[in-house]
Order: sequence, then C-alpha cells, then structure tokens
Amino acid sequence: MASINGDRLLADLRELARIGAYQTGVDRIAFSAQDIEARRWLVGKLKQAGFDASMDRAGNVLGRDAGAPKAILIGSHTDTVPKGGWLDGALGVIYALEIARSAREAKSTSEIGVDVMSFQDEEGSYLSCFGSRIFCDGVANSEIESAQAKDGTPLVKALEALATEAPHHRLDPNRHLCYLEAHIEQGPRLEAASQRIAVVTGLVGIRRFRIRAFGRADHAGTTPMNMRRDAGAALVAFAGWVASEFPRHAGPETVWNIGSMTFLPGAANVVPDQAELVLEFRDTKTAVLDLLEAKVLARVEDSAAASARLEAHPLSRILPADMSSSLGAVIALAAAGFGEKAMFIPSGAGHDAMFVARSIPAAMLFVPSIGGRSHHISENTSDADIVLGCKVLAEAVSRLQANPSAIGSNP
Amino acid sequence: MASINGDRLLADLRELARIGAYQTGVDRIAFSAQDIEARRWLVGKLKQAGFDASMDRAGNVLGRDAGAPKAILIGSHTDTVPKGGWLDGALGVIYALEIARSAREAKSTSEIGVDVMSFQDEEGSYLSCFGSRIFCDGVANSEIESAQAKDGTPLVKALEALATEAPHHRLDPNRHLCYLEAHIEQGPRLEAASQRIAVVTGLVGIRRFRIRAFGRADHAGTTPMNMRRDAGAALVAFAGWVASEFPRHAGPETVWNIGSMTFLPGAANVVPDQAELVLEFRDTKTAVLDLLEAKVLARVEDSAAASARLEAHPLSRILPADMSSSLGAVIALAAAGFGEKAMFIPSGAGHDAMFVARSIPAAMLFVPSIGGRSHHISENTSDADIVLGCKVLAEAVSRLQANPSAIGSNP
Repeated sequence: MASINGDRLLADLRELARIGAYQTGVDRIAFSAQDIEARRWLVGKLKQAGFDASMDRAGNVLGRDAGAPKAILIGSHTDTVPKGGWLDGALGVIYALEIARSAREAKSTSEIGVDVMSFQDEEGSYLSCFGSRIFCDGVANSEIESAQAKDGTPLVKALEALATEAPHHRLDPNRHLCYLEAHIEQGPRLEAASQRIAVVTGLVGIRRFRIRAFGRADHAGTTPMNMRRDAGAALVAFAGWVASEFPRHAGPETVWNIGSMTFLPGAANVVPDQAELVLEFRDTKTAVLDLLEAKVLARVEDSAAASARLEAHPLSRILPADMSSSLGAVIALAAAGFGEKAMFIPSGAGHDAMFVARSIPAAMLFVPSIGGRSHHISENTSDADIVLGCKVLAEAVSRLQANPSAIGSNP
Repeated sequence: MASINGDRLLADLRELARIGAYQTGVDRIAFSAQDIEARRWLVGKLKQAGFDASMDRAGNVLGRDAGAPKAILIGSHTDTVPKGGWLDGALGVIYALEIARSAREAKSTSEIGVDVMSFQDEEGSYLSCFGSRIFCDGVANSEIESAQAKDGTPLVKALEALATEAPHHRLDPNRHLCYLEAHIEQGPRLEAASQRIAVVTGLVGIRRFRIRAFGRADHAGTTPMNMRRDAGAALVAFAGWVASEFPRHAGPETVWNIGSMTFLPGAANVVPDQAELVLEFRDTKTAVLDLLEAKVLARVEDSAAASARLEAHPLSRILPADMSSSLGAVIALAAAGFGEKAMFIPSGAGHDAMFVARSIPAAMLFVPSIGGRSHHISENTSDADIVLGCKVLAEAVSRLQANPSAIGSNP
C-alpha cells in the first residue's frame, strides 16, 4: 500500500497558494502571469521528483512516469476564477503530484505508473475546460478563434505567449488506462451528513434557457388591470409555475435555478413591456432533463394566446457524463479501509473529468467544503480531510495497480 | 352660453407645440429655454386678449381677468416630460386661454371672471407639482434647496434665471372660487367605452414600496434544493401572492404594478442572495390603500422565519384627492347639453388639481387619449374631441357663472 506524505502535501498546497495569493484565496486566472508561474512551478516539482514534465503550448502541464509503459492519469487544474479559493483544482493536482511522487519513492514495481496532469482554463476565463478538451479530442480552430475573455482579449492572443512551449500533450489511449480527479465538493452535502469522502456518480448535464415575456408599456395609474398586457406579471407567473411544477417532474437529485430576472423599462409607474429571466436545470439523467425541457416549452407555448406572450431561447446545453461505477467502487472500498463510508452523489458542477470520461474510464472523489463555499476566498477544507482524501485516492490507485481489471474498458 | 372658437383653439395648441417640438411630440422640460419661451408666449397671448398677465419667479403664469372681482381659475401646465406629447398639460392651458378670451369677447357681464393658469414643473423635472404647490400653500425652503434634476442641477440654480420676474402669484381665497382643469385621459377607458368626456371623481393616492429579499448565494449546481436560501424564489413567491391576493382586497378601481424586479448577483449558476422589486398601488380611497398596505406588511412579516427574509421599505406616499362632486355634476350636465354622457372615473395619474383641491373646490374633465398613450411623442386626441372638450368646459363655466351656488364651498 502506497503511503503518502501528508505534511508534504499540505506544504505543497500552501506553496502553490502563494502564487497569485489574494487575501485568504487565490487569483490565478488562466494564462495570467500568476497562472503560468504556477504551471512552471508544477513542472519544476515534477522534474525534481523524476518525472518527464513540461507545459505545452495550450498551457497543459503533463508529468509522465517515464519508467512505466502504462499509467493512471490523475489531475485537475491550477487556474482559478477571479478572487477564487486556494483548493478548487489545486487540490486534485497536488494529490496527483503527491501520489505519483510517493509511488516513485516506494519504488513501485507495477507496470502501471501515475501520470500527473494540470489542465488549462477549466474555469472558462476564455473557454471552459479548454485544456481537457484539447488534450482528449482537440478543439476546432473556429472555436479557438472566437473565444475571448470577458475583457475582450482573444484566446489566440493569450496563446501567442506560449507558442514556443512543447507541442500539445495528447491523451494516449494505449498508455492512459483511466482518469482520477479529486476535488472539493463545492457544496454542503458531505458536511451536512458529517461524512468525509464522496464518490461522484456522474456529472450533471445542464440546460439553460432565457425566457422572455413581451407585453405593452402602459401607465400603471391610468390603465385598468383588465386592460393590461403585463410582461412582468407573465414572467412572475412562469417563475411561480417552475416553483410548483418542477418538483413534480424532477428526479431526487435534480436542481434548478432562476438566477436573474429583469423588467423593462423598469419604472415603478410603467407596466413592464418586456421581462426576462434565465432558468437552468441540472441532472445526471438525460431523460429527466428532456422531460423538464418539454414541460418548459409546453408552458411557453401555452402563452401564445395570453395577453403577454412568452418565448424560450436555449442558451446552453451541457451533456451529462457518467463516471465509471467500477472505479467508484474501488474508491469506496479504499475509503472503507480508512473507516470511512463513502457517500455517492452527483457533481452539480462541471469538471475536466466530464471531457476525459468520453475517452477513458473516469472517476472523481470529493472532500468536504467548509460551509459548502467555493469560488470565493473563504473556500476551505480541514487539513485532516485534505490528507484523508489523498490517502483514499492513493489507496485506490494501489488497488487498481494490483488489480487492473477493475479499471474496466473504454466507455 | 359662451361660444368658443374651435379653429383658434386648435391653432393655438399647434403654435404652442412648435416651441420645443420633437418629432411628433414636444420636449419642453420645466425651466428649459423652451419651457420659458412657451410661458412668455402664453403671457403675450393673454395680454393681447386684455388680461393682466405675467410669469412669476417660480415660472407660474397667471392671467387675471382684471375687470371681475371674482374668478374661476382654469389651467394646467405647459412643461412636459422629456420627449413627451403635445397635449399633456398644454390642452388644459389653451382651453383656459380660449374660454377666458371668448368670455371677454362676449362681453360677459358676470361678476365672476376667468383667470388662466399655467403651473410650473407639474411633471417633476425638479419637484413634482412645484408650481401648484407654491401657488396654493408654498413649499418649504428646505425642500426647494434639496430638489434637483436627474442630471444633478439644483432647483435653486434653475430658479436663479427667473429671480427678476414678478413676485410669486398666490391663490386668493377671496377671488378664486374654484379650479377647473381639463386634461387628456392618459389611459384607454374613454376610447374603450366609445365615450368622449369623463368627469374625474378623484385623484388616486399612491403608495410605493421597495420589497427586498435576503438569502444566501450558493452554487446552483452543487446545493440541493432543500438546503438553499433563495432570495429570488422568495421574491417571486411574494409577487405571486400580490397577483392572487390583491384582487381579493382591492376596490373596483384599484390598480397596482410591479414595475421593476432585480436579482443579485444575477448569474445563471448562482442562487440569488438578494432580490428586490418595486410595488405600487393606487386608489382614491384611503381605506383601500390602508388595507392593502396592512396585507403587504403582514405578508412581509410572515417571512421573518423563512429561509429568505423579506423587508418592506416605503418609497413614497401620495394622498388621494377628492374632486368636487357638485362641480363634476355641472360638467356632466354641460356634456349632456352636447349629447354626451359623461363617464365618471378616477384619475390614476397625479395632476396640479390634487394640490389646488386642498384649498378650493376643484374638478377635472378628461378627453380621450388615442390608444391610451401619453408621455410619448405618439400622444394624441382627435381634433373633434379636443374642440368638444373645450365646448363642454366653457358651457360648465357659463353655468357656474349663472349659478354660483353650484360651486360649493371650500373643502
């Protein structure tokens, strides 16, 4: 059984957190000077531990265990959201570093090594999961050329600075047997259940719609109630319908949100002539997403004859990704070895594993987020939980090395 | 019976509309060069017709019928909203001019003359109904000193340019027996009922509240539905409650509106931690307003233990103003003389009559607004309806001159 060094793990996490430190968090946006500094720091750590490591011209860092003909790929990302937390992404990368390094130090004789990965721009400062997408399947030039940051900087401009780095690292189906990614939960469920390890059953699909209502702007003092075409009232009725109907059709793990709502012209004494909201819903099951979408579109269509008409505009559609149940079972068994009963939950957020899972079996392990907080400088996990998570993942890797048939086959 | 000159009335209205003309409407914001030009034009018209006329240092124009010891005060305002219509306010002022002028031309022997008024800044570019308030009761210096336009220009700065004009005109309780104001309806009711004249029963009181909801910003993918404190959902539930409960407690003429609604932080994937809306409701009856306010505050208080708490912040409170029913009856009788059955409706918008009615009996007459439109360059009324409205008001004045007991006494 591999033995990781918990103190070294925590020290590395804290050293990495100093690059781009912002108050108690980290600001290390993809392609920023801080992001590139962190990636070069990781390359240095990997080389020091004897790995064949480099950053490629996309910003992806890969550390290959050159002595092994095959490898389990472990990793996550080191870029952050603006003013983000110190663990999101970094945790999974430093777990990979520590597990790979410990395995080498233990002079593992397995023909299955550990390769370490830090993907670029998981957070989508330019293009969500750019690194894992280009590593697995590539990204169309047209998509790269149109991608840009919020401030308008094109992705191609950000890539120029890396033009002399290594050629793109690519997933090697003959070498990479599976992908493991550890991450903070970013939600409250482990903490609420007083549990310490979760196995991710799947990553949710996300469907997002802009719902717009069209009415007529009338004077709110002089127009009788029954002569109005109130876009705001129509949208409130729609939102109320979501609140009452979604629970009837949703699955046990479905979540939904109306995150924005706006009335125009927005004056107290004018009946709104336009109103819009953004509705999203998430589930790991496509059938549930399809049912909710059909209900939404039917409700919108029902409004055609109403005094204020609704329209639904699809904004985005992210497919759900199943995680490997056999890999998940190995992680749960590893947790049990430490006296921990793993919780099986979906991931409501997206991760690089979503894209890697299309090519090779993938699994994710979550550790608790204190207060469920993430994407914020208050994001944190206890040292004990951080170390335990790494021990469980290392133990799972040992079991997979010992029994590769548990990895399963390509999806 | 006084006979007004319909062609001259229309010609004067069109001549006035050229001052500050904006496309098919008028932009004549209070105290602007265009507004002052229109007021000087009116003074000229009044002097030409033999009236003792001047603009005072507040911008109010008064044309006194110096030959009569008592007078019926008729008028409205000549300032407009930005990019407004050509009739709002102007109609009532030119009616007054035409009725007063016609009476003089007919060499009326009544001891009750007609005084003509154009109040300043009814539209509240600096201070709503500033002119009628200063004419009737005065306005506290502190209120004048704190009033400013949207662009930050203080009212005192706007007043400086008029410092050498006449001293403030004041309501003279020994002279001014009552106040009559004609106005476009600014709503759809006359047109919908195919009627041409409305008598205003009262001006609605307005209560306006900002309702705010406070929750917690959680990740909308990772936070289960039952662990959220969703400020947006709480506000949608409140707005839905307004839609279902207000009809149960409202009077037949009550109107209400939720004109703005905002969620924060406003991201699709974040549960809103703050949300706010502005709710207003209007009625001529204080008891109805009190009941609705009590229901709103009780509903807000009920939320104290909910996952997202509500707060109600009063924004403004305008008292209702009754119009004189005996003056209204005289207008309705005058309309009947032209074969028109007057409709009795409340005014959902504010007018100068609201303030004058606190000092002397007041009445308002409405003519139809095409499409119910106002405060917009598309605002219009047919020529025939414009002329008819003036004839009805002139006939009402004749009847009051002949039978002053119908005026009633001070409120």
